[in-house]
Amino acid sequence: MNVRFYNARILTMERDCSLIEGELWVKGERIAYVGPAREEDGTVWDEQIDCQGNVLMPGFKNAHTHSAMTAMRSFADDMPLQEWLNTKIFPLEAKMTEQDNDDLTRLAILEYLTTGVTAIFDMYLSPKDIARACIDMGMRCVLVSGLNKFGPSVREMENRYNTLNRLHPLIRYHMGVHAEYTCDKALLEEVSALIHQYRAPLFAHLSETQLETRECEERYGLTPPQFFDSLGLFDFGGGGYHCVYFNEEDMDLFARKGLHIVTNPGSNTKLASGIAPVGRFLEKKINVAIGTDGPSSNNCLDMFREMFLVTGLAKLLQKDAAAVDAHEVLRMATVNGAHAMGLTDADVLAEGKYADLILIDLHQPNMQPLNNITKNIVYSGSKQNVKLTMIDGRILYRDGEFLNGVDAEAIYARANEIIARLAG
Amino acid sequence: MNVRFYNARILTMERDCSLIEGELWVKGERIAYVGPAREEDGTVWDEQIDCQGNVLMPGFKNAHTHSAMTAMRSFADDMPLQEWLNTKIFPLEAKMTEQDNDDLTRLAILEYLTTGVTAIFDMYLSPKDIARACIDMGMRCVLVSGLNKFGPSVREMENRYNTLNRLHPLIRYHMGVHAEYTCDKALLEEVSALIHQYRAPLFAHLSETQLETRECEERYGLTPPQFFDSLGLFDFGGGGYHCVYFNEEDMDLFARKGLHIVTNPGSNTKLASGIAPVGRFLEKKINVAIGTDGPSSNNCLDMFREMFLVTGLAKLLQKDAAAVDAHEVLRMATVNGAHAMGLTDADVLAEGKYADLILIDLHQPNMQPLNNITKNIVYSGSKQNVKLTMIDGRILYRDGEFLNGVDAEAIYARANEIIARLAG
Repeated sequence: MNVRFYNARILTMERDCSLIEGELWVKGERIAYVGPAREEDGTVWDEQIDCQGNVLMPGFKNAHTHSAMTAMRSFADDMPLQEWLNTKIFPLEAKMTEQDNDDLTRLAILEYLTTGVTAIFDMYLSPKDIARACIDMGMRCVLVSGLNKFGPSVREMENRYNTLNRLHPLIRYHMGVHAEYTCDKALLEEVSALIHQYRAPLFAHLSETQLETRECEERYGLTPPQFFDSLGLFDFGGGGYHCVYFNEEDMDLFARKGLHIVTNPGSNTKLASGIAPVGRFLEKKINVAIGTDGPSSNNCLDMFREMFLVTGLAKLLQKDAAAVDAHEVLRMATVNGAHAMGLTDADVLAEGKYADLILIDLHQPNMQPLNNITKNIVYSGSKQNVKLTMIDGRILYRDGEFLNGVDAEAIYARANEIIARLAG
Repeated sequence: MNVRFYNARILTMERDCSLIEGELWVKGERIAYVGPAREEDGTVWDEQIDCQGNVLMPGFKNAHTHSAMTAMRSFADDMPLQEWLNTKIFPLEAKMTEQDNDDLTRLAILEYLTTGVTAIFDMYLSPKDIARACIDMGMRCVLVSGLNKFGPSVREMENRYNTLNRLHPLIRYHMGVHAEYTCDKALLEEVSALIHQYRAPLFAHLSETQLETRECEERYGLTPPQFFDSLGLFDFGGGGYHCVYFNEEDMDLFARKGLHIVTNPGSNTKLASGIAPVGRFLEKKINVAIGTDGPSSNNCLDMFREMFLVTGLAKLLQKDAAAVDAHEVLRMATVNGAHAMGLTDADVLAEGKYADLILIDLHQPNMQPLNNITKNIVYSGSKQNVKLTMIDGRILYRDGEFLNGVDAEAIYARANEIIARLAG
C-alpha cells in the first residue's frame, strides 16, 4: 500500500517534541518521506488522507504486557496480591490451552489498536500462538521468554529464540526469565550460559514489590538486579520490568550497562505495589519505557492512562508539580519503548523507518484550545483521540472501526467462552 | 420527548451495583419506568433505542469543577503550584470577560458530554454566564459561589442566590467561599450571617495543600474545616473540595454534621498536592463525591480517569490492593455526587427521577470479557465507552456526535481566539 498523509502536524520524535507541518508518505511498509508539503513524484497512491491538521506521530510501544491475560480482566479485583495470584490467577492459567493464548491475544490486539499501540513487548505462556495472532492481525510483537522453574526449559527457550526470530518480519523474540523468585540459582546460571553463547540481552520482572526485593536480599545478599548481574545475565544488555524498589546502586548498574527500565504505573497502582522512582531514573540517564502490564492487573491496556500516571505519580512522589515533564513521558511511550524492545527501525517518523504510526484527533473538546498540543496529549489525551492506527504500512484501525475483515464480536464471544471454561 | 430504551442491562444504583435486564422509559424530562421488559402502554414514542445489552446507568456527577478554565488547558504545565497560579493563571483570569465565561464553559460542556457527565458543580467567575451556557446546551448545573476578598460581595452572592435559584430548572445555586486563605475572618462572619438567614449549606476549597492547612492553623489555631465550623459556616450543611490534609478531628466533624467531601485526585496528582485519605473518609461514613477540578490543573474533564485514580491512589496510600472497592467508587461518581450537590431528584435510575443517564458500550475490547461489568467500568472503562448521554430527558451526545445543532468547531475556534487575546 502507498499512502500519502497530508495537511498534518507531524511529531517525528527525532529530536524533541516539536511539530512540523506537512506530509508523510508511506510506500509499502516503510516511510518514504516526512517533511513540508511537496510536489508529487508520480507515485500511484492507494489512498491520500487529509489529516485536517491532526497530529501524526509514532505509535505507542507497550513495553511490558501479558496480552492473553484478557480472560482474567476484572475477574478478581480488590484482593491482596498473593491471594489474587494463588487463588484466582494461577489455577486458571494452568488450564489455558495454546489456542486460548491465540484467541485471547487477539482480544488484546483490538484494544491496543484503539489506544494507538503499534508494538508490544509480550511475555506469556505460549509464544508461538501469540505470534500467530499478531501476524494474522498485523501487530508488531517482540516476544520475551517468561522462563521459570515450571517451564519452559532453557533448551526450549533456545529453540524458540532460533525459530521465532526467523518466523516473520513482525515478530522478534528476546530471552528472558520471569523473575528471581520463580527461578533457582542453578537455572539462572544455565540461562546465563545461553545468554553468553548467543551474546543476547535478557529481560525479567525486577524489584516489583518490597517483598520480592527483601526476599532476594535475604537469599543472596543482593537485590534482584545485582543478583542477576552477578550471574552475568546482563552482560549483553536487556533490562527489567516494574523496577519499583530500585536503590541507588541498582540504578547505577542500569546506567552503567545501558539497561532498560519498563515502568508499569497502572499495575503498580492497582496492586498497591508502590511508585517507581522514575524521576531519579531519568536523572541517571537510564532509558525508561512504559508498559501496561497484563489486563488482569491493570485492568486496561490504555497507554494514555499509563502516560498520565507516569508523570502524575512522579509529581506525587517527589512532591513537585514540575517533576517528569510531559515531553519526557511522550518520549518514554514511543522512542524509549522502541529502543528497549530493540525496534530501532520503528522508533521515530523518518525516511526508511517502518510506518508504525497513529493519527491523534485534535478536533475533540479535550484537545482544545491548542495551547500546547504535545503536552496536552499526555495530560488530557485519551484513546478516543486515536483516529487511525497503522502498523507496517497497513491501516488496521480507523474512526473506531477495525479494518481488514476483523470480526471483533467473534473475538469477544471466544473470550467469554474461554473464561467460562477456565473458571468452570 | 418520549424515549424507550430496551434490551439493556440497567445499573439503577438504587441499592448496590447489581444489574437488572430490561427497559427504561423516559417521558418528558423524567423516568417513567425501570424494570423488566413489559407490555407497551400506548405511549407514542419519539424514539425506541435497542441498547444491545449495553449498560444504562445514572450519568456521572462532576462534583467540583471550574469549567471556564478550559482556556488555560495545557497553557502552563510542569510548574510549581504558586508560580503557576501567580504568573500564569491569575493574570489571565483578570482579563476574562463575561462572554469568555460563557464561551469557555460551552467547550467544557462538550467534554462533559463525551465522558458521561450529566451534572456539574461549578465554581467560577461569572455564574450567570455559566448558567446561560448550561441552559443553552442542556447541561444540569449546580453553581457555587467562589466568594473571596476580591469579589463578589456578600450582597451580590445573596442576590445571585435569589436570582439564579429561580432562573431555570437546570440551574441551582449554592452559597460558597473560595477558601480560607482568600477570605479574612470578618468576611467569613458576614457570610455566616447570610448562611444563617437562609439556612443554607456552604461549600469551599478546604485543606487542599499542606501549606494552606498549616497557615490556617498558624493564623487561627484551627484547621480550615474546624475554623469554618467555629464561625457557624457549616450549621446548615455543605462541605469541602479536595480535603487532602484532613485529620481525624476534621473527619469526625464532617461525619457528625453530615458534610460532603468532594475528592479531586487528578488535580491533586498533577499539582503534587498529595493523596486524600479516601478510605478513612469511607470508614467514617462521610459522603464522598468526585470532581475533576478545573481543566487547567488536571488537564482533562474525564470521570473515568478520576474514578481509577480514586481507587488506585487509595490502594497506594493504604498499601492494600483491596482498599476502596470499585463499587464504592461508582457510587461516589454518581449517587454521592448528586447528594453532595443537592440533586436528590437526579441521583439514581427510578420512576419519577430526572432522566439524567448514560449508555456504556460493552461492545468494545476494553469491556470484554464480561467478568464483572461494573468493576470493569471503573478499572478499564474510558470515555470511548460512553455511547449516549441524556440530560433532563434530552439526548445531547450519541456515538461521538454532539446533537441539537451544536457547532463544536465554532466553540473550539472561540476558545482559541480567547486564549490568544488573554495571553497576548
